[in-house]
Amino acid sequence: MKNTLLTIAYDGTNYGGWQVQPNSVTIEEKLSRALSRIADNPIKIVGSGRTDAKVHASGQKANVFLNTKVPVERIPFALNPFLPDDIVVRKAEEVHSEFHARYDAIKKTYRYRMNFDEFPDPILRNYSYTPKGSCNLRSIQEALGVFKGTHDFKGFMSTGSEVKSTIRTIYRIDFQSMSNSQKEIVITGNGFLYNMVRIIVGTLVDVGCGKRSISDIQKALLKGERSLAGHTAPPQGLVLEEVLYPVNPLEKLKENR
Amino acid sequence: MKNTLLTIAYDGTNYGGWQVQPNSVTIEEKLSRALSRIADNPIKIVGSGRTDAKVHASGQKANVFLNTKVPVERIPFALNPFLPDDIVVRKAEEVHSEFHARYDAIKKTYRYRMNFDEFPDPILRNYSYTPKGSCNLRSIQEALGVFKGTHDFKGFMSTGSEVKSTIRTIYRIDFQSMSNSQKEIVITGNGFLYNMVRIIVGTLVDVGCGKRSISDIQKALLKGERSLAGHTAPPQGLVLEEVLYPVNPLEKLKENR
Repeated sequence: MKNTLLTIAYDGTNYGGWQVQPNSVTIEEKLSRALSRIADNPIKIVGSGRTDAKVHASGQKANVFLNTKVPVERIPFALNPFLPDDIVVRKAEEVHSEFHARYDAIKKTYRYRMNFDEFPDPILRNYSYTPKGSCNLRSIQEALGVFKGTHDFKGFMSTGSEVKSTIRTIYRIDFQSMSNSQKEIVITGNGFLYNMVRIIVGTLVDVGCGKRSISDIQKALLKGERSLAGHTAPPQGLVLEEVLYPVNPLEKLKENR
Repeated sequence: MKNTLLTIAYDGTNYGGWQVQPNSVTIEEKLSRALSRIADNPIKIVGSGRTDAKVHASGQKANVFLNTKVPVERIPFALNPFLPDDIVVRKAEEVHSEFHARYDAIKKTYRYRMNFDEFPDPILRNYSYTPKGSCNLRSIQEALGVFKGTHDFKGFMSTGSEVKSTIRTIYRIDFQSMSNSQKEIVITGNGFLYNMVRIIVGTLVDVGCGKRSISDIQKALLKGERSLAGHTAPPQGLVLEEVLYPVNPLEKLKENR
């Protein structure tokens, strides 16, 4: 059996999120069924992390042990015909038997798309967030920097997940202009708490709309109270773009954990 | 009754095209129903031109005579709640009673999105075309210029429409790079024959794939035979971006026709 690292892209619009759960169709479930068509062994997928309902991914990572006759580099070709057209496996690579897609991840990048048109193009409706009211984009730009670095993000986390520590490091947070009305926030960190990216974006939008100030963000970071941060931006603007691992994943990684 | 010019955006994925027809749901039909909710008179919409099934628009134009209490600038706010979320009226302006959205149009711009990833991001599946096989993008870039200017585009037209003349002028045709794998062809002309943009794009892709040469395009333009041009690129990559009129549409336009 080979430990296999998959790079997966999906349109999350019609799914209840990444992880298998009762009463909704999930990406993991569809992937698991497709994998069982090409492998002989029971399938147990380890994702780099969950994504919520309606959240997208262009570079989600997951590892899975496979006993299959398909050569590893041909797995995407063999697997995609068994997947619905809103899920695509883009790459498969063999990794060390101790590689773990969640524990070994050292960096993740998310992209959050926003639209500031009064009447936005409907082709963006499932892939971006249009905040209500008028927004000062310069205020958003100015507030970004507050999140950079290592902070306790306890105030920027939704309840419903258990974590040992709420301290995370943001390496990069940029506000990019795609056009007059389309903007993106790109954020790279060593890990993200539940809904952390969406609460950061929602808080920045609140700053742009004059509902919160930069010092409110600082206070929310300092006190760790969810009520001091802003609203949770909706899921459809969010894309998990990249998950990074420390070294060539074929090498033994356990020492680095 | 006021002659009203509407700017309309739509995601064409789930429609049989712009124009009302039996056995499929169309944009015009949905728009007509919504307009009849805010106006007292029978609705007769004049679009700037048709778009095919699955083709999108960010700036389609149409004029319609309306007897309504809604002030013209408030029409988008009044109308959008009666439209499905894949059709949005972005603007409404009063125009001269003789203004005609099709006859008075002098320029149109289309955008055609392509993807050259082996395993493209599924969020693009309804909004771009992924040609099969490997493509030389420089060849596409080099071939573009052949279409510029005034030509008889008889060979770049599908059957099924009646036109007086097949001569058209392309003012601009550009190949734009959105990312490593995402490209767009932007094309502005004084008018387009049935499927003309999609056949131009398909022919350019054939050139990129080595199936046709620049001199084949020249021959197709000269001889006007459809069989000499390339394939018809699929509809989902196409967006009608802009329709231009000669002067302030409130002014009398008939003299200029």
